[in-house]
Amino acid sequence: MKVLLCGDFTADERSDWLQALSAAMPEAQWLDLEAARQAPASVMAAVVANPPPGSLLGLPALRLIQSLWAGVDRLMADATLPAGVPVARMVDPAMNAAMAQTALWAVLSLHRGFFAYARRQREGQWLQHVQRRADEVRVLVLGQGQMGRTAAQCIEQQGYAVSTWRRNGTPLQPLLSKADIVLNLLPLTEQTRGLLDRDFFAALPPKASVVNLARGAHVVDADLLAALDSGHLRHAVLDVFHVEPLPADHRYWQHPRVTVLPHAAASTDARSAAAVAVANLRAARDGGELMHRVERERGY
Amino acid sequence: MKVLLCGDFTADERSDWLQALSAAMPEAQWLDLEAARQAPASVMAAVVANPPPGSLLGLPALRLIQSLWAGVDRLMADATLPAGVPVARMVDPAMNAAMAQTALWAVLSLHRGFFAYARRQREGQWLQHVQRRADEVRVLVLGQGQMGRTAAQCIEQQGYAVSTWRRNGTPLQPLLSKADIVLNLLPLTEQTRGLLDRDFFAALPPKASVVNLARGAHVVDADLLAALDSGHLRHAVLDVFHVEPLPADHRYWQHPRVTVLPHAAASTDARSAAAVAVANLRAARDGGELMHRVERERGY
Repeated sequence: MKVLLCGDFTADERSDWLQALSAAMPEAQWLDLEAARQAPASVMAAVVANPPPGSLLGLPALRLIQSLWAGVDRLMADATLPAGVPVARMVDPAMNAAMAQTALWAVLSLHRGFFAYARRQREGQWLQHVQRRADEVRVLVLGQGQMGRTAAQCIEQQGYAVSTWRRNGTPLQPLLSKADIVLNLLPLTEQTRGLLDRDFFAALPPKASVVNLARGAHVVDADLLAALDSGHLRHAVLDVFHVEPLPADHRYWQHPRVTVLPHAAASTDARSAAAVAVANLRAARDGGELMHRVERERGY
Repeated sequence: MKVLLCGDFTADERSDWLQALSAAMPEAQWLDLEAARQAPASVMAAVVANPPPGSLLGLPALRLIQSLWAGVDRLMADATLPAGVPVARMVDPAMNAAMAQTALWAVLSLHRGFFAYARRQREGQWLQHVQRRADEVRVLVLGQGQMGRTAAQCIEQQGYAVSTWRRNGTPLQPLLSKADIVLNLLPLTEQTRGLLDRDFFAALPPKASVVNLARGAHVVDADLLAALDSGHLRHAVLDVFHVEPLPADHRYWQHPRVTVLPHAAASTDARSAAAVAVANLRAARDGGELMHRVERERGY
């Protein structure tokens, strides 16, 4: 079975993926874009990580496009993506665990004031906050996919008062009004783009905090900065941005109540993700059932 | 029943404790030091939080000294503490939970490099670390009291490779050599004072990290700073210090690889701790069994 492997990897990353995939599926032949172009009719599947637009055109035998990334918004935005070929996103247990770790770390940091203590350390200030119990802290998790569910469970296990929301579910406004911390793990679609805007922040109680581990385009940056600057919001933890890397002159970098992470909340782990991708490749080859298929209509 | 309430409280703290204790035991009469001095023979118990040395002398009917703090090293060091009166330390479930939260936050921060990301944010640097799974991170918890056990369980539940050590148990050296993160929750006694010294740090593998949430006197500061400066240790999270508040000119404040917390890892929660103290007061009054008694010989 010939499989195209392409994406915006560095050479090292490509070599890590190639090693993990070959180990999981030694019977496959892994082609780069150039090799695929030389024998397009033999390419049965593509394993991709934000491939250059057009990469998947002209491959008549293609049965599966398997993403290595969980977020497929950039992939699905490629108008040249061949219609009729199933697309699967990555659901990697190691990545879900990593995302839950980052979510829990952000919640613990906000609940116990560790970001404020770090500021005070730089100022040489010795001053304790009032300590609340976890069950007195209300955490609202947006998104109920694999990552949203795993994170919500992990946070609830620590005793926090967790509620959850997904689009097409209950109305959002009443939940926002009762949230001390909002954690965004929604997929990015036309319906969720810009959801975290002025109205969203205004619906939160004073001194609430926001954690965005999903996509930068969920947030209207000017509205978030205004809500922080007015003192309405306490703190924001941001892992994702409209432009990445975050431009050097962006206000987020230096804002005392913004924590900037370099899109590091959760990476796909090649070791476990390769097994997930290969299970789907074998299903595509053998006519088995594909896992984690993207619904093109809804975009995730 | 007359109970002396004394310690190094602020007026607000004293009033919070008085309110919580009165609510839990409305039948008791709560005396301050002056009132106790006027009717010493009527004082049946003392509820204390680092009381001034000598406070508990001359109270002939005293049946119980109940500490509001979990750490009793300062109380037990008072040579005037009346012999023969049972001493109980505080075991507050809310405080155990708070300690486990701080321990887990420190472990997550070290494992996922969030302290390093905070430094990079200040420098405007966008750079991801390699992401390891929790089961690849070895955490050694020193101390197997209520707090050590609760913290170890909570960290293990997140998938970390946890080992534990208590004094008089297995030898420490071999465990240190296999620890990526050491978390100290030992009681402070003559045997554990200065345990975290040059030999201790040298036994850790390169790039290990240290978290001290117990007592400042467990650590030889000069040895810790030397191990950090040489690059042998990656990071230290310190909540407790030889002198508190940490003096303004102490190197820890400005060290880029030291996180300073203002003795805030876990506070006793007056709401739940009052119930624990009152259960012991009633046991002392009624001749019931006292909980959480300090063994004077071992000092905790």
